[in-house]
Order: sequence, then structure tokens, then C-alpha cells
Amino acid sequence: MILTVTLNAALDLTYRVPALLPHTSHRVSEVIERPGGKGLNVARVLAAIGHDTVVTGFAGGTTGEILRAQLAGLPVRDALVPVAGTTRRTLAVVDAASGDTTQFNEPGPTVTPDEWAAFLTSYESLLRDAEAVALCGSLPPGIHVGAYAELIRRARAAGVPALLDTSGEPLRRGIAARPDLVKPNADELAQLTGSREPLRATHDARRRGARTVVSSLGPDGILAATPDGTWQATPPGTVLGNPTGAGDSAVAGLLSGLVESLPWPDLLTRAVALATATVLAPTAGDFDRASYEDLLPRITVTEHAPAA
Amino acid sequence: MILTVTLNAALDLTYRVPALLPHTSHRVSEVIERPGGKGLNVARVLAAIGHDTVVTGFAGGTTGEILRAQLAGLPVRDALVPVAGTTRRTLAVVDAASGDTTQFNEPGPTVTPDEWAAFLTSYESLLRDAEAVALCGSLPPGIHVGAYAELIRRARAAGVPALLDTSGEPLRRGIAARPDLVKPNADELAQLTGSREPLRATHDARRRGARTVVSSLGPDGILAATPDGTWQATPPGTVLGNPTGAGDSAVAGLLSGLVESLPWPDLLTRAVALATATVLAPTAGDFDRASYEDLLPRITVTEHAPAA
Repeated sequence: MILTVTLNAALDLTYRVPALLPHTSHRVSEVIERPGGKGLNVARVLAAIGHDTVVTGFAGGTTGEILRAQLAGLPVRDALVPVAGTTRRTLAVVDAASGDTTQFNEPGPTVTPDEWAAFLTSYESLLRDAEAVALCGSLPPGIHVGAYAELIRRARAAGVPALLDTSGEPLRRGIAARPDLVKPNADELAQLTGSREPLRATHDARRRGARTVVSSLGPDGILAATPDGTWQATPPGTVLGNPTGAGDSAVAGLLSGLVESLPWPDLLTRAVALATATVLAPTAGDFDRASYEDLLPRITVTEHAPAA
Repeated sequence: MILTVTLNAALDLTYRVPALLPHTSHRVSEVIERPGGKGLNVARVLAAIGHDTVVTGFAGGTTGEILRAQLAGLPVRDALVPVAGTTRRTLAVVDAASGDTTQFNEPGPTVTPDEWAAFLTSYESLLRDAEAVALCGSLPPGIHVGAYAELIRRARAAGVPALLDTSGEPLRRGIAARPDLVKPNADELAQLTGSREPLRATHDARRRGARTVVSSLGPDGILAATPDGTWQATPPGTVLGNPTGAGDSAVAGLLSGLVESLPWPDLLTRAVALATATVLAPTAGDFDRASYEDLLPRITVTEHAPAA
């Protein structure tokens, strides 16, 4: 099975309003509620493409109960660890006319040292059956900033490849613990390396410790610096839609390809096709299967010259 | 006991953010979650001033479960009727710097005819023990616009005084069913009567069927047109604070005074003192007991000349 870790899982709410006007009152015309947090999104896509998937992280309080009730309806196994605090909500308020989104993110529960210890015990046990592990998203209050580095070291000790998808200091610390793969987006890459030149920044990120760095570049697809060479995979033409969740779908593509030992060009093609099919999906965060099948033969992969 | 009806009960969320900027992302620094809907707020204040209080209305779905779990911690009896739909949330996003609020209201569950029939059966049974009933707030989808009129007629048939606090068409229809008391605010009064002149509009509202009309006029206190005369009760000087819930506290004051057969000036004094102590409370919707005790002897009540 593939294990995904979401330390700061969330209940994602979407409110549709005619237009957001600060300091006025709005009637919400549509409410959507679904499990959220990057690792849960990755797991949903992994399950949809046929991989046995287990989700872990923390869940607590009434919001945690709602989250777990919703997970029970998905083809992923729930191994979330209980916490006394309350799972956060994230709220996206979408202007119906423009599609513009205003985001509100609750901080999440404060995780105690005992709860973190309980998580580590459960994580070690889950690693025994894992073919790969994805470590995704932000850290909740109470979790030390080197937490991902610790989880990467334990995965390596267990012989399980680890993918890291986070930002800021947790990314900086995590990458130094030598994960098999990190997937920064352009902003995360620039924050990590100080460079907005994708090729230079991706190689720089790799030198910081990751075996492979796959940078997601939005409409320009993804750029992968691997031990075997550097490739860029790009979607065919411009794609209009909602990019929410595209990065998580790319992670699912990368992780599934890693487990299936796909050659890099095929693996990157899958990641870009899944990400693009997510942008095209009518529901934010899902991927459109017909678009995915249609896109697979239309992704372009080009090899770059070796890094200087 | 006093019965309060909240057909569209809510889970009230408050998010504190530094400042609301449309189409950006916000970290929420503070989340407050509490039972909401006017009738529940009224019940909380009634219980706090020593009245045995029962709340009814509808609750459903996961949000309904959270609401009921929170009600269990309050000194009011929960007689909410289950519905298949999901209880709404209301979200107030408060700018930390200015205190300005941006409000988002979910629509609430669609109540089926069978659920409405179940409510009416429960309501009839609760009326048997009620000294008074308050009918509060908006109607959820599926409930006919004359619902409050129906509830007022049934209260009268049971010999139970009914107070109505709603707006728009439900107020217009409800007032025609001759409730004992209606409590419009200035906007609701203007919408009902077409007049923004408080004295004229309050008398006009009373001619539409209510035995007594108590108009809440914000910092100007309240204006009451009763069968025994017309009074205005005003707080001492300007009060700075959060007016959220002040109207509901006024309703609790009116209802408790009605049950205790207080003379109008005393009853109105209590309503204004409770409303003002709510504006002064550090938590929105609560009232500050010390301020309330302090305010009671300082409310001014003046009698107006009889209506022309």
C-alpha cells in the first residue's frame, strides 16, 4: 500500500456567493464540504487510479468526526491518530461571477508531545506495509519544525521511499534529511533557493539533499531533476479551469509511478496528465478521468542537458 | 417554563483575521463556535436571569450534532426536532483592527412537510407547560411563509402569550395573526410600515394586529406601544461595544417581564438594561451581569402622549 501523511488534515468548505463585499452580509447559495489537506487529496487520487492507500495524520473534535465520517465513504483506509484538539476547517469563498476565491484557514489543533509520540508509533507500524510514503502540507501547532525530517529518516530506516510536499522551514529541514523526492511549486522553490529561474532553482534544491526534485510550474508543467537526468513534461496548450488540487494530483502521479518503477518520462507524463485533468474537472480537487486518458498521449517530455 | 422557537437554528462561527482582503488567503487567528439563531440566544439569556427555558426548532446533520452537543452544556432544555437536512452555519469574519464584520449565512436545511408536522405535534405538547413562547428569526427553506401565523394561532388557542421577532413577509403575516408582542428593529419596522419615523411606525405596526409592539432603536433604546400606553426606555449616554445579540437580550427581558407580570416601565427597563449589557460584554452575544445590575437604576423611561 501507499501511505500518505497529513499532519494538519482539514475539513474543506466551499461557499459560493454572488460577490464578496467586505463588511456586508452574504447569503451563501451553495455549501460544499469535503475531507481536505494535501495528503488526503493525494490519497483520493491514488485510490482512484487503483492504488491501495492508507491515510494517517491527526483528527480531533467535532470537525475531526465529520472528516472521518466523510473519509469512510472513500476507498482509502483511515489510520488517522486521535487528538484532543479540533481538526481545522479551511473555507474557500468563491465569487460566482468571477470565480475569484477568498481563503480562510483555521490554525488546526495544538498537538501535544504524547500525541506526537502516539503518531510515531502508529507511523512505524504503517511503514512496515508501505511501498512508499507521502509527507504533505503544513504542520499543526505544537509539532516541531523538524518533524518531516524525522519522518523521512524513519522511512529510510524502514526502506520506504519518501516524498515530501511542504513549504517554508519544514521543507528546508525536510530536504536536508534526504527524501527520495520533493515536489515544490514555483513559489516554494523560490522561497527555498532564492531563485525564480526554474532550472537553476530545481538543481539547487536537489543539491540540498533530495534524490529527485520535481518542480511544478503551473501551465508550464513540471521540471524534474533526477539521478538519471533532467526532464520537463508539459501539457498540450493552455488549460482553463480551477488549479486547486492540481499539485496534489501531480504528487499522486509521481508516487504511483515510483511504486510501479515507471521510467521517468512515463512517470512525469502521468503526473502532468493527472494535474491537468484536475484543472479541467468541474469539481475543484477532483480529476476528470476522460480528460486524463485523453491527455496521456499528448504530454510532451523533453530532456535537458546535464546540470553544470 | 418559557419556550423559544428557532426554526432556522445555526452553529455560529466567528473568525478573527487581521483584515479581510477579497481574493487573498487569510490565517484565522481565533475561532469561536457557539449555538446560534435568535431563539437560542434568547433562551441563553432567559436561563441566565433564572427562567426555566426550553428551546425547540430543528436540528440535523453533523452541524446539528455539534449544536446539540454545545446546547447540552447550557442550562436550557433541548427539545429540537430532528431533520434529515443539515443545520446551517453562520460565519462572522471580524477584522481585528477595525472590528468590522463580514457575514456569511448558509441557507439551512430544507424542512419536509412530514418534519413540519412532527414539529407541530411537539410544539403543541410543549405549549401545555409554557408560560410564554418566543418565535424567533428567519424561516428555513421548505417552511411556508405563514408558519409563524400558524404558531401564534396555536399558542393563543393554548392560552400562551406569543412574542414574534422576525422580519419581512413572515413578520407581516405573523403580525396579522395577532401575537401578544412583536419586537421589530428600526429596519424591520421601516420594511413593514414604510415609515422611518419610530413613533408613527410603531403605532402603525400595532394597528396591523399585535397587542404590543416594542421597537428596538439601537442607541435610542426601545419604544413600546402597549394597550396601556406608549413608553420609551433609553440607556444612559452612548454605549460603545458590539451590538450583536442586543436585540435577542431585549427579547429575553421582555418575555421574562411578561411572565412575571411586571409593569411596563419595569419590563422595558429590564429589556434595555439587558440589551445594553450585551453591547458592553466582551464576548459577542453574551451579557455582562455586573453592567446589567449597574444599568437597571439608570435606564430612563418616558411616557408618550396617547396615539392620535
